[in-house]
Amino acid sequence: MFTLQQCQEIFNTALLREVELLKKKPEELYLPVEYIMSSGGKRLRPSLVLMSFNLFSDDIESAVYPALGIEFFHNFTLLHDDIMDKSPMRRNNPTVHTKWNENVAILSGDAMAIIAYHYISKCRAEFLTSVLETFSQSALKVCEGQQYDMNFETLQDVSEADYLKMIELKTAVLIATSLKTGAILGGAKTQEANTLYDFGKNLGLAFQLQDDLLDVFGNSEVFGKPIGADIIANKKTYLMIKALSVARDNDLAELKQTLSNKYSGHAEKIKTITGLYHKLNIQKYTAGKIKCYYDNALQCLESVNSGARTKEYLRSVAEMLMHRER
Amino acid sequence: MFTLQQCQEIFNTALLREVELLKKKPEELYLPVEYIMSSGGKRLRPSLVLMSFNLFSDDIESAVYPALGIEFFHNFTLLHDDIMDKSPMRRNNPTVHTKWNENVAILSGDAMAIIAYHYISKCRAEFLTSVLETFSQSALKVCEGQQYDMNFETLQDVSEADYLKMIELKTAVLIATSLKTGAILGGAKTQEANTLYDFGKNLGLAFQLQDDLLDVFGNSEVFGKPIGADIIANKKTYLMIKALSVARDNDLAELKQTLSNKYSGHAEKIKTITGLYHKLNIQKYTAGKIKCYYDNALQCLESVNSGARTKEYLRSVAEMLMHRER
Repeated sequence: MFTLQQCQEIFNTALLREVELLKKKPEELYLPVEYIMSSGGKRLRPSLVLMSFNLFSDDIESAVYPALGIEFFHNFTLLHDDIMDKSPMRRNNPTVHTKWNENVAILSGDAMAIIAYHYISKCRAEFLTSVLETFSQSALKVCEGQQYDMNFETLQDVSEADYLKMIELKTAVLIATSLKTGAILGGAKTQEANTLYDFGKNLGLAFQLQDDLLDVFGNSEVFGKPIGADIIANKKTYLMIKALSVARDNDLAELKQTLSNKYSGHAEKIKTITGLYHKLNIQKYTAGKIKCYYDNALQCLESVNSGARTKEYLRSVAEMLMHRER
Repeated sequence: MFTLQQCQEIFNTALLREVELLKKKPEELYLPVEYIMSSGGKRLRPSLVLMSFNLFSDDIESAVYPALGIEFFHNFTLLHDDIMDKSPMRRNNPTVHTKWNENVAILSGDAMAIIAYHYISKCRAEFLTSVLETFSQSALKVCEGQQYDMNFETLQDVSEADYLKMIELKTAVLIATSLKTGAILGGAKTQEANTLYDFGKNLGLAFQLQDDLLDVFGNSEVFGKPIGADIIANKKTYLMIKALSVARDNDLAELKQTLSNKYSGHAEKIKTITGLYHKLNIQKYTAGKIKCYYDNALQCLESVNSGARTKEYLRSVAEMLMHRER
């Protein structure tokens, strides 16, 4: 039985070893891969692969390569998203396209997607077809989610349902796939693998809404990013969409005016919007929605037929994610 | 037994059917995929998958999905290369990043890489591990080749050996992999699959050198691209590298001066360089190198243990490629 921390350690050991093997030429292609893969991160997805695998089998080393594949894929999407979003920083380091250039970032990202598939393919032959089908379907959904996210930037009206669908595709599906992949590799029945997918999907939705919340109400030093960045970028987060739907009369007018006013100072804009969120009870609405997904997730986990102790470890990961401040 | 034309027809029928299935949302993600996959091209790689498969088996339909995978991957690399090279046109149409924008081109390219793997994975389970390993290794080499190609743009001295290694990675390896994949799927022994890989590698090298030659000595209307584009772009093709290595005294000085003179007119530059190529016998050197690879390729094909008739069809493809004018 392995805890989250133990799974993270097993994964990080394997990652260090594999990153050494990627010190190849041409350097312009492989150095950025090493750079982003060594820049930290929670290693949430690969740990979930291992923990889900561990519900059904103890031979955890045999799931490490597919776990590496999913983490490489996740970082590949971050690398390309950062180009598209023109983000200068990631995990307190300059992004690849900032440190090198856009061409290097495009091509080393492409290489990472290929390396991801290379690792995912390193699993027992009997599970390969099923693992690859699950992974490719989800990988395509992640691209769809990113496209919707970009489309929303220029759309006036984004409904709550549209937003939830977008974060499901962009974030929740890969977390769900991590759990399903671990289950398949551990020899779980199809139904159990699908239930763990649903556990992960609900957990992923709660996780992203928590992120939206922390952007406004978090502690900047703990969260690791400046507070209010989504507000400054006029991002249509769950909070903003909810505020636009519940605000009336003067509040709605003030909200819309602040959104359209390009010339107000950053601090002032954050203060006004945060004030409106308080007045409109947006934190409560969002926390309620998070709890709803969190409860759904736990219900899924409950129905998985496996040893109580490993399920307890997964439950504690879910709880930790819900109470996280970063 | 299927000829090149028949394989192209089988492939194009499958492609049309699959492109219909890709009419999905969000349109910004999938329309560019449909656009580039419907813009023509020789369909050389997927046809080689099918013809190589046909050396060992007649059930050609069972190799169509992996053939689709390789053609999707090839077009994904073209799409991303066009962003990196800032190319405005491809196959007489605006490139994706020109018709839409760079973000759309990055993300729909990413989707194409995933779709490529999805198709490649649709093969008989017993061959899946081997097909994927071959493919991922080669896909990574294609990225390495593109990176070297970009590096060469700013390097003063590129040796003939460096150049040949670059085009092997960027172009020849995927042609080789097409042939090897067909052979694996057809049930060929490892040695035969590797011999077909070598046939394809030599054919691919000859193919790319032919491309370099056609850029200078081709007929623009037949070739489909303006003649001398590589000269204008100061590209270090085989011809240029050879010319720089054999030119002496005044010829070398004139060559270097023309290369460094940014202000000479395009027509004048093409005329001067082409004149030097004539004087230095560069066409003859290049044709000799092409013949060398072509002969190597045929020798590999000769040693494959398979029916004479299907080998004859593959030999005629090689001959057609060597005498092509476009």
